[in-house]
Amino acid sequence: MQYHLNGFRSGDPELSGPQDGPQPDAPAAALPAEVDVLIVGSGPTGLTLAAQLAAFPGITTRIIEQKTGPLRLGQADGIACRTMEMFEAFGFCEKVLKEAYWVNETTFWRPDAARPGAILRSGRIQDTEDGLSEFPHVILNQARVHDFFLDTLRKAPAGLIPDYDRQVTGLSIETAPPGGGAAPSHPVTVTVAWGDPEAGGTTETVRARYVIGCDGARSVVRKAIGRELHGEAANQAWGVMDVLVVTDFPDIRLKTAIHSATEGSLLIIPREGGYLVRLYIELDKLNENERVASRNLTVDYLIVAAQRILRPYTLAVKEVAWWSVYDIGQRLCDRFDDVADADTGLPRVFIAGDACHTHSPKAGQGMNMSMQDSFSLGWKLASVLQGRASAAILRTYSQERHAIAQELIDFDRELAKMFSARPKEADDPDGEGIDPAEFQKYFVQHGRFTAGTATRYRPSLITGTDSHQALATGFPVGMRFHSAPVVRLADARPLQLGHVVKADGRWRLFAFADAAVPTAPGSRLRALCDFLAAASQSPLRRYTPAGADIDTVIDVRAVLQQPHRQLALDGLPAVLLPRKGKYGLIDYEKAFCPDLSGRGDIFDLRGIDRARGCMVLVRPDQYIAHVLPLDAADALCAFFDGFMLSPA
Amino acid sequence: MQYHLNGFRSGDPELSGPQDGPQPDAPAAALPAEVDVLIVGSGPTGLTLAAQLAAFPGITTRIIEQKTGPLRLGQADGIACRTMEMFEAFGFCEKVLKEAYWVNETTFWRPDAARPGAILRSGRIQDTEDGLSEFPHVILNQARVHDFFLDTLRKAPAGLIPDYDRQVTGLSIETAPPGGGAAPSHPVTVTVAWGDPEAGGTTETVRARYVIGCDGARSVVRKAIGRELHGEAANQAWGVMDVLVVTDFPDIRLKTAIHSATEGSLLIIPREGGYLVRLYIELDKLNENERVASRNLTVDYLIVAAQRILRPYTLAVKEVAWWSVYDIGQRLCDRFDDVADADTGLPRVFIAGDACHTHSPKAGQGMNMSMQDSFSLGWKLASVLQGRASAAILRTYSQERHAIAQELIDFDRELAKMFSARPKEADDPDGEGIDPAEFQKYFVQHGRFTAGTATRYRPSLITGTDSHQALATGFPVGMRFHSAPVVRLADARPLQLGHVVKADGRWRLFAFADAAVPTAPGSRLRALCDFLAAASQSPLRRYTPAGADIDTVIDVRAVLQQPHRQLALDGLPAVLLPRKGKYGLIDYEKAFCPDLSGRGDIFDLRGIDRARGCMVLVRPDQYIAHVLPLDAADALCAFFDGFMLSPA
Repeated sequence: MQYHLNGFRSGDPELSGPQDGPQPDAPAAALPAEVDVLIVGSGPTGLTLAAQLAAFPGITTRIIEQKTGPLRLGQADGIACRTMEMFEAFGFCEKVLKEAYWVNETTFWRPDAARPGAILRSGRIQDTEDGLSEFPHVILNQARVHDFFLDTLRKAPAGLIPDYDRQVTGLSIETAPPGGGAAPSHPVTVTVAWGDPEAGGTTETVRARYVIGCDGARSVVRKAIGRELHGEAANQAWGVMDVLVVTDFPDIRLKTAIHSATEGSLLIIPREGGYLVRLYIELDKLNENERVASRNLTVDYLIVAAQRILRPYTLAVKEVAWWSVYDIGQRLCDRFDDVADADTGLPRVFIAGDACHTHSPKAGQGMNMSMQDSFSLGWKLASVLQGRASAAILRTYSQERHAIAQELIDFDRELAKMFSARPKEADDPDGEGIDPAEFQKYFVQHGRFTAGTATRYRPSLITGTDSHQALATGFPVGMRFHSAPVVRLADARPLQLGHVVKADGRWRLFAFADAAVPTAPGSRLRALCDFLAAASQSPLRRYTPAGADIDTVIDVRAVLQQPHRQLALDGLPAVLLPRKGKYGLIDYEKAFCPDLSGRGDIFDLRGIDRARGCMVLVRPDQYIAHVLPLDAADALCAFFDGFMLSPA
Repeated sequence: MQYHLNGFRSGDPELSGPQDGPQPDAPAAALPAEVDVLIVGSGPTGLTLAAQLAAFPGITTRIIEQKTGPLRLGQADGIACRTMEMFEAFGFCEKVLKEAYWVNETTFWRPDAARPGAILRSGRIQDTEDGLSEFPHVILNQARVHDFFLDTLRKAPAGLIPDYDRQVTGLSIETAPPGGGAAPSHPVTVTVAWGDPEAGGTTETVRARYVIGCDGARSVVRKAIGRELHGEAANQAWGVMDVLVVTDFPDIRLKTAIHSATEGSLLIIPREGGYLVRLYIELDKLNENERVASRNLTVDYLIVAAQRILRPYTLAVKEVAWWSVYDIGQRLCDRFDDVADADTGLPRVFIAGDACHTHSPKAGQGMNMSMQDSFSLGWKLASVLQGRASAAILRTYSQERHAIAQELIDFDRELAKMFSARPKEADDPDGEGIDPAEFQKYFVQHGRFTAGTATRYRPSLITGTDSHQALATGFPVGMRFHSAPVVRLADARPLQLGHVVKADGRWRLFAFADAAVPTAPGSRLRALCDFLAAASQSPLRRYTPAGADIDTVIDVRAVLQQPHRQLALDGLPAVLLPRKGKYGLIDYEKAFCPDLSGRGDIFDLRGIDRARGCMVLVRPDQYIAHVLPLDAADALCAFFDGFMLSPA
């Protein structure tokens, strides 16, 4: 953490405002007439977006939520490695690591051919492959994730809490007047019902520059912009329950998939705290057009079903913390915004999370996918609202996230089918059903997908092509910046390079040095740094607002090849020792060296060309926008010039 | 973290009380007439003690503090590895890791023989040797440590906040009436002035079972029990300042000791947040009986002195967050409690921290030493107050901590001398002064001492002898339990074994298995576990209160030798799968295996006898009380029988 730049201040460094000043503890009495952004829904999707926008004091955001207060008990619980990386950027991953269950291994059980009616363990795998992420896959009640986001929001530069007990009743978008008048600044008008109408509730009207529907599968915002979820009807019913149990099943503290011979399938997800466990239980096939709700299933029915599947092991349920039955299919919206023409329209209303894609919960993807939606949208909105980027970048939101949602839907459909299929008889390999070994193999193959690290955005205004990918084979363009260990030059501190990418809306330019030391005359790194600091066409000079620190918009970091004790701090180019803040203090956290203590040299781990070095440009949402040669400053300029705006 | 044992509850699992119930946010209106423990002073010493006692809902504690509110700006900043281990036990090490500066390397500078008046770097070392602790040495403002303790106190089972604006004005101890009547239950009477006496302040009287003076170098409690600090007068003046600077000195972000040729010495301690730095500056020798305060030194004087020492480098001070001049010598009390006869008396009043030992701040030991004082005292007081242990164990507090304080005083005297000595001339190795290489060597040699990991308590009622030390050479009896990586059997989670030792007043018995699997007929581990579970003389059976979970007083954990995938959970002895809480749920966190992924096998790392295994008994303050053979259950019983009390 960096703080005290503009003077020492005592107290919690995460708290942006004055320590004893007013904090946004109580909901505002009424919504303002105008806001920059109105977020509808305070689930993980809405909170991620709000946390991103609250990082900017100049942006006015409100979150409205129809519930009367913060969530106490959530349904989602899976937190993928990729999401942990995002939580790190938002500053609370350590809280999640502390409270959560860590998914370390997954086991697979199948019918025991020797003992009819019994199950036996057929496989055991590491849940996440080595080196996939510096974070584990964890499980934690969604309500705690909300708590951490709410805490982040409270402490943010634009401190914020949701406005509860408010429901959207209408939404309209004003277009530019025909004949070419100026477009309205706040074109979206939303009417909101506040409180119980029977008890004197009122209606408020808010005009917003942008509105984002994070309001779930029954999204009012989605309906208001005329979008629909399309997809298959679900005809497989599942039950889910969070329970405190006593069992002699030996894998009760491991993620476990069980295919019984005749009683169906069961998925065990151990939960946080060491005792709680979530069970997903396969129920009957539904008839066409039948909904599971019509069957009036009870929790006792679920318990008995789980007990049958687990035989010969016993299962005594001592407490049910939460349970549900569901028949959700896979459904998807065509587009995630309000524009008719994807190439020319400038969106004003967006939908994210369950509002635009729904699927089964078994792959643990729902909450993760939804938060990544709004992590992708947040910085784009902020850049446009700050006047730093063209509104055209907002088109990439639907493009990027629709493609990823489609992949999830396809994956989920296949996974759900495999879960529900009967296991093959061991003595009839050609018979119907699924071979448990196949199921396990599928799990392993899709490990990167479920970890959230397989996402790859296609080339666009904000993502380059892979024409120089050979310079950094371990940093694929369009994929998330895969962190690796380094040592910080100035203070010899070992850390994860990826953790300098905070959710602060900034672009990061990682300059991986060529083999020369930076003081050598032929150093390409120095030439690049000198260009960035001095050239009139340098994006740092073009796009940094007057008077702002030089790393405000684009944050340049260098990774050198030499061991840190062999390099002199005073030999660094000036752009790597920038003077900042009201005192012109030196920021010493821009230069890094490989960690040679055994954790792996980042140049080897990520396949960096040691002779030539390279630039790896990272978007504010941690995705790699470009890999370029160190001497391709012109290409770097051209990339930024494609969508960045010079300060007014 | 383990939670949800007695039923699922939503919200912050660190919060013990009901989430929405009354929290101790405001000071009590008045002090109660009687308390179990009265702590005087809310510095790190008092807060550590309070945090320990607040873990027990049955113990009534109050902290009184003469300041009018929490500390905003502290003077101490060094946090040793050992202290981080303790913070882990109290549950907030991750917050410190996040905010603090990490001391990774230390550099040494000496006069440059080639350039008179200039300095050059003469050495660079790793600050903490590899493997010394799983935690780094860090630097953080003492006020933040207070904040974390205060947060812990608020959330604790006996939620507590200090009572501010209160000053002790009198203390008396009532002894048992002559002729043999019953001793009073609350023998210490303390009078407390509350608020400003000019503005209608009042006086309160509190009777306490125990009173602890954590009230600093001018301790009122110390004076009340007639103890005095003895030691040498200081005649060397130093200045210290926390500053925001601009400098071209390349090691400004490294801990650095500088000996200049003629301008004196300077110690640089980089601080949290990336910009702040603390400078300790040698000032003139004082005359006999002179105090530094009499010289009216200004901060500008300190700045100029620092600038001279740093030549040829420049130093521009942009802001002074705090500064001071001091001439503290090394002083120590004879005893840290009120008893006259160390062998027979039962202490009722204790002193801890600066109240019983003072020394220079340069080794960064003050806050650490003080917190370890009260960490040592806290569990002893709690055990006695709960009726679990004989009051005789309270005598060990002064015995143990006085010896450690004496070691610190001796170390500090030598270090201070070396700091103040002039560096030897490079061309006159036999001349006066200190060779900078010697100074560096001294630093390295005493690294374990300054890390706080060299503390070794002597044999006593609560610490055994080292007669079986050969069974676990890496767990020396009397020293802190040195954590090592393991994998938890039930959920395959990699973790640090030492992190199961929480600050909850419990004893931990780590049973390191012999080579046999626990299901084998000859398993010594199983024989021990069966004894502990069933034998009438088992300390678990003798000392666990009726109706309490079996691990309430002594928590048995096993470390097996086999890889975790080779062992079956259902083959464990019952004491390693205990049934707990109102539902009789199974605690799955008692059995561990070596981490074979490259972090090191704990049996190798800690020199455990693989053929025989052993017991390592750990005190509630993380110190090793005993190493015993697995079949020495009788010796284990005898050890506990020496001071434990059966429940009434």
